[in-house]
Amino acid sequence: MTTLKEVGEFGLIERIKRLCEAPWASRPRADLPLGIGDDAAIWRPTFGEDAVLTCDVQVMGRHFFPQMLERADLSACLGRRCAAVNLSDIAAMGAQPRLALVSLGLTEKIAVETVEALYRGLVEAFTETGVQIVGGNLTSTEGPLFVDITLIGQAKAAQLVRRSGAQLGDSIGLIGACGASAAGLAILQAFSPQDWQALELATCHPLVRSYLQPAVFLAAGRVLSLYAHAMIDVSDGLLADLDHLLKASGVGARLVETQIPCSDTLKRWSIEQKRGLLETLFAPSDDYSLLFCAASDQKQAIAEALHQEAGVSVSWIGEITRAQDGYLLERTDTSLQAVSPQGWKHF
Amino acid sequence: MTTLKEVGEFGLIERIKRLCEAPWASRPRADLPLGIGDDAAIWRPTFGEDAVLTCDVQVMGRHFFPQMLERADLSACLGRRCAAVNLSDIAAMGAQPRLALVSLGLTEKIAVETVEALYRGLVEAFTETGVQIVGGNLTSTEGPLFVDITLIGQAKAAQLVRRSGAQLGDSIGLIGACGASAAGLAILQAFSPQDWQALELATCHPLVRSYLQPAVFLAAGRVLSLYAHAMIDVSDGLLADLDHLLKASGVGARLVETQIPCSDTLKRWSIEQKRGLLETLFAPSDDYSLLFCAASDQKQAIAEALHQEAGVSVSWIGEITRAQDGYLLERTDTSLQAVSPQGWKHF
Repeated sequence: MTTLKEVGEFGLIERIKRLCEAPWASRPRADLPLGIGDDAAIWRPTFGEDAVLTCDVQVMGRHFFPQMLERADLSACLGRRCAAVNLSDIAAMGAQPRLALVSLGLTEKIAVETVEALYRGLVEAFTETGVQIVGGNLTSTEGPLFVDITLIGQAKAAQLVRRSGAQLGDSIGLIGACGASAAGLAILQAFSPQDWQALELATCHPLVRSYLQPAVFLAAGRVLSLYAHAMIDVSDGLLADLDHLLKASGVGARLVETQIPCSDTLKRWSIEQKRGLLETLFAPSDDYSLLFCAASDQKQAIAEALHQEAGVSVSWIGEITRAQDGYLLERTDTSLQAVSPQGWKHF
Repeated sequence: MTTLKEVGEFGLIERIKRLCEAPWASRPRADLPLGIGDDAAIWRPTFGEDAVLTCDVQVMGRHFFPQMLERADLSACLGRRCAAVNLSDIAAMGAQPRLALVSLGLTEKIAVETVEALYRGLVEAFTETGVQIVGGNLTSTEGPLFVDITLIGQAKAAQLVRRSGAQLGDSIGLIGACGASAAGLAILQAFSPQDWQALELATCHPLVRSYLQPAVFLAAGRVLSLYAHAMIDVSDGLLADLDHLLKASGVGARLVETQIPCSDTLKRWSIEQKRGLLETLFAPSDDYSLLFCAASDQKQAIAEALHQEAGVSVSWIGEITRAQDGYLLERTDTSLQAVSPQGWKHF
C-alpha cells in the first residue's frame, strides 16, 4: 500500500494519466484535438447537434459507504457508480455521452491503489459508453473523499427530451426497476463493517447489485428520443421523479398498481422485511431507470424498437391526466388513492 | 443567520436560482435553450468554433482561509476568486467563456447568507464575463466546504493557443504581475483570526487585493490568440509555469532580470521582509497573469493591439532558445544563471 503523501500529487496524476491513456481506454478522436495537460481541453462539437451538460458530486459517508474504499473491487464499483449517476442524466435527455471532467478530493492518507481502483472503474464505465476523460482536478482535503464529475453529451436538438413535454392521454412507460436500489442499500446498511471484508457483496445479491452497479439505459434513451414527449431518470424514487415530470409538464397522472414491475427477489425481500409491497416499490430509491411519456398509440412501436435496438422491455405503468385530476394510484380493487410524491405510506 | 439545515437543500436551491435568474445576471441566450432544472442543461455551440473545457476545485483550509466565510464581503470575494481561477484558464487558451456548472459541498451548520454571498460573487464575476451558470450540484459534507466549477468557453479552432507552440527566437511576454499574489497571501497569513473581523482586508492593501481579487485577462487573451504561438496562465508561479510551457514546446528560454515587472509596492514589501527581490518575484504564486510567446518582430503590433483592444500593457521578459541551451536568467551584470522551476533560491 502506498499513500498519496508518498507519491505526491504529480505521482498520482502520472498514474491516472496512464490509466486514461491505456490502449483499451483511449482511441484517437477527431472531435477531441486536445485532452489532459493544457490550460483547458478542446472539444469540437458535431455540427447540427446540441451539447447537454450535467454534473454530480458523490461524497463519502453521504453518498457511499466508507467501507467501499477498503476493497479494490468495491472501489472500482464505486467508480462505475459515479459514472452511472451522470450517464443516466444524459440517457434521460436522449443524448449520446461524449466527454467528462473528473475532480477528486482526497485525504493524504488514502492508498494510491484505492484511488487507482476507483479511477479504473470510472474509466471502464466511460470507455464502454464512448466517453473520454479530457480533464479534471486533484486536490487534497481534510474531509471525506469526494468525486465530482461533469459529463457532456450531444444529440440533434429536435431529439432532446425534456421533462416538460408530457401530454394529456400519454402513456407512462418505465424502463428498469423501481425500489430495487433502496432495498439493496437497506441490505448493505444491515451489515456490520467487519462483514464487508468477508462477503462477496458486489455479486452476491441481485438487489445489492442494483444499488452498487445500476444499469444505465443509454441505448433505450436514444430510442425513446424518437418517441417520448417527456423523460426523466429515476434518482429520487418513482413517485418523486414522476412528480418532477408532472410539475414541469403541468399535468396529472394515474398510475396502475398492477402494472408497476416487481421482481420475485424484491417481492420476497419485501415479505421478509414485513414491508408492504407498494412501500418497497415507491420508496425513495436511485434506480437510474427511465421514466417517460409518449402517445398511447405508439406503445406497440416503442416496445418493438426498444426490444430490437436496445434489448430492453418496457412497463406501461399509467397515463397522463389533467393537472386538476391530481396524482393518483389505481389500486388492485380499482379504487383510486392520492399519491404522495415523497414515497408511499399506508394510511 | 439561517443555517442550511433550517432551509434545507431545496430552500437553498430556490435562493440560488433566484440569484442566477436575477435580471442583472440572466439574459435570454439563443445558445442556451435549457438551463437549470432538467436532467441536463442544453447548449448550442456556435458553428465553426471549438469548445474549451476546464475545471477547478477550491477547498476550505487548503485553497482559502476559513475566515473568509465569516464575512459577507469576503465570501463574495471568494466566489469571484473561484470564478477567476477558471476564467484565467479560458483566457490562456485565447477563448471566450460561455457557461459554467457549479458544485458546492457544504456543512449543515453553514449560514445560508454565507452561501448566498459566495454565490453572488460567483454570479457577478460570471455575468461580467458573459458566462451563465447552467447547472450544478449541492451536497452536504462533514468535511471542509468546497467549490468545484466546470467552465466552458469557445473560439475558432485556429485561434486557440496551446502551451506547445513556442518557437526558437520568440519573445516571451507577460501580462500582469508576478509574485504579488504570494506576497498578499503572506500578508494575510500573518494576521491572527481575530484581526480578520476588524480589518478592511479586501481593499486595504494592493498586494492582498492581488491575492483576493486577481485580475483575469480575458480580452488580452483574445487579442493574443491572433499572435501568440504558445500561452499559459500563471497559477503556480512565473518560473514553474514558463517551465510547463517550455517542456510542452520542447524549447529553452533566457529571461532577463531587468525586464521582469515589479511594482513599487512589491519592492517595498520585499525590502521590509528582508527578502531578495528575485525570490519575491519568482516565488510560487497564483497571479493569473498571462505568459505567452510570439514572433519577436510582432512585439510592436502586439503591444499596440493589447493597449487598444484590452487596455493592458505587456512586459517582454525574455526569449525562447533551444532546449539544449537550458532555462537561464540573465542577471543585471549580464551573467547567466540556471533557473530552478520550483522557485528562486539564492545560492
